[in-house]
Amino acid sequence: MTLPPEFTLIARHFRPLAGAGGLDLADDAALLAPPTDRELVLAADAMVAGVHFLADDPPETIGRKLLRVNLSDLAAMGAEPLAYLMTVALPHGTPDTWLQGFVAGLAEDQRRYALQVLGGDTVSTPGPLTLSLTILGSVPPGAAIRRSGAQPGDDLWVSGTLGDGALGLCAIRGEIPDDGTLAARYRLPEPRLALGQALRGLATAMLDVSDGLVQDCGHLARLAGCAAAIEAAALPLSPMARAAGDAARAAALSGGDDYELLFAAHPADAPRVEAAARAADTPVTRIGRFASPGEAETFTTGPAPVMVRDEGGRDITPARGGWSHT
Amino acid sequence: MTLPPEFTLIARHFRPLAGAGGLDLADDAALLAPPTDRELVLAADAMVAGVHFLADDPPETIGRKLLRVNLSDLAAMGAEPLAYLMTVALPHGTPDTWLQGFVAGLAEDQRRYALQVLGGDTVSTPGPLTLSLTILGSVPPGAAIRRSGAQPGDDLWVSGTLGDGALGLCAIRGEIPDDGTLAARYRLPEPRLALGQALRGLATAMLDVSDGLVQDCGHLARLAGCAAAIEAAALPLSPMARAAGDAARAAALSGGDDYELLFAAHPADAPRVEAAARAADTPVTRIGRFASPGEAETFTTGPAPVMVRDEGGRDITPARGGWSHT
Repeated sequence: MTLPPEFTLIARHFRPLAGAGGLDLADDAALLAPPTDRELVLAADAMVAGVHFLADDPPETIGRKLLRVNLSDLAAMGAEPLAYLMTVALPHGTPDTWLQGFVAGLAEDQRRYALQVLGGDTVSTPGPLTLSLTILGSVPPGAAIRRSGAQPGDDLWVSGTLGDGALGLCAIRGEIPDDGTLAARYRLPEPRLALGQALRGLATAMLDVSDGLVQDCGHLARLAGCAAAIEAAALPLSPMARAAGDAARAAALSGGDDYELLFAAHPADAPRVEAAARAADTPVTRIGRFASPGEAETFTTGPAPVMVRDEGGRDITPARGGWSHT
Repeated sequence: MTLPPEFTLIARHFRPLAGAGGLDLADDAALLAPPTDRELVLAADAMVAGVHFLADDPPETIGRKLLRVNLSDLAAMGAEPLAYLMTVALPHGTPDTWLQGFVAGLAEDQRRYALQVLGGDTVSTPGPLTLSLTILGSVPPGAAIRRSGAQPGDDLWVSGTLGDGALGLCAIRGEIPDDGTLAARYRLPEPRLALGQALRGLATAMLDVSDGLVQDCGHLARLAGCAAAIEAAALPLSPMARAAGDAARAAALSGGDDYELLFAAHPADAPRVEAAARAADTPVTRIGRFASPGEAETFTTGPAPVMVRDEGGRDITPARGGWSHT
């Protein structure tokens, strides 16, 4: 379609981002020779201004947040990134400087993650800025780590620190103190790609924490057909999260936007998990375990398959398991 | 994220659409074993209610329109469809019946085009319904038909009839009479997949008409570095478009949303083009040609690389070459 000036601008800025497969973003579609002897891994996510990010977030971070959320889905499968396609529904009158920042941020992350953009579309909207991104990655055949597969008795592990994403939103709103690290976690999550790949053949089940720890652990437990217990005292918190006091534990249990890897592994594999984490330069923490057969009934107190316990073994599972963007 | 009832509903309806590769839409990402000895072809498009379709269009047609627009991009490359991913930003309070219709329409086209859905995302928006779709297809290596490649002296061909998409919008608005065929063309374009595939090795350049004939022909001409002339009398019009009178020619030249294939072929290949069209059960019409070397200067009268001529050879190129959704 004939594009108003801001769209011509974004097209002009997007074009240099395109690799050879993107056909300079000038054809009807892009061509990609699939990597040989690999399975493709694909995911798509959308974000809306005011719902999944703040309309006045720095433009440099907005496209990258969606890219990293998608990269986190690849990490959770143990996949390596390959390429992406992105569509942008832009509000009328979006200033040129905003677009320049938006594209500069994406360019930086394309370099960081060795990604090429294969195509996309820019349209106009009378509503809020709305982004959609499809990511492509690859794994050796059969090596993808699925959500199902946890075994009774497996340990439950998590990467990095929990709660920072949700606390970051509070910090940006001025509700809690922040040296900038919490806000950065909300705006630019860190996809744990190296760790995800290092856990192939080792993690029995994995996902990335985007809905909140308790809810996401519930997905793993339900798919495994068994209950899980999380030890609250073991939850890894960042120094800035600890400074937030009581809010930190709630955010760690139920906050969204952390994009850390949550995974199950056989207890005997704990040394191998720790070695994989060191190799990937990513901290991991054992935060609980899945019930062994026969133990499940005493493991949870209600219909939820996940119990959170304090140091005294008391059930402190939050009433509401997840956190909703909507 | 925790989804309000309408999102749970759409997830429940989407899930049966998913093939094995979609992992039942329950994992972080989908797995796809790429077809052997093929190149992948990928495109992404977005649509916004009130911009690219009418908010009160039947829900059965809305998702399918975006799917077909993307399939048309595959057709324009000579590719065969494989799978898609879709994200949906839904306004609050979208009724269940609307969602049921939306998903039923997609299910019908998945069957029609033998497509599987590999994944997607449903989010909430305070703005208009916004859809984004990434399509995957494949071609034998090197067989994709590109936009560049037209040669001086090539014939210019188009499939089907022109102008119906733009006239369909006028008809829906009650501005012109319609027996339903024009409205159907606006709401459900027909991707010319069989023709696109039949033209591999035959069309020297191809795209689908989405911006308007003159503007899209300009893309082919510019990439070929030569001018093109379109014979207005040769433009294929549907019976219902002819009934619209003068508006029909304007719509055929500058209307959008036709999604017919516009392609170049060597004049000696005209019989083979016609045979390919018969095999694909899709009518084609020769509507002009690209200038031969030395002829270009007399071929166009201005800076535009495309001239439209009437029966007397007079230049009747419309002042505005394209049609904008924005």
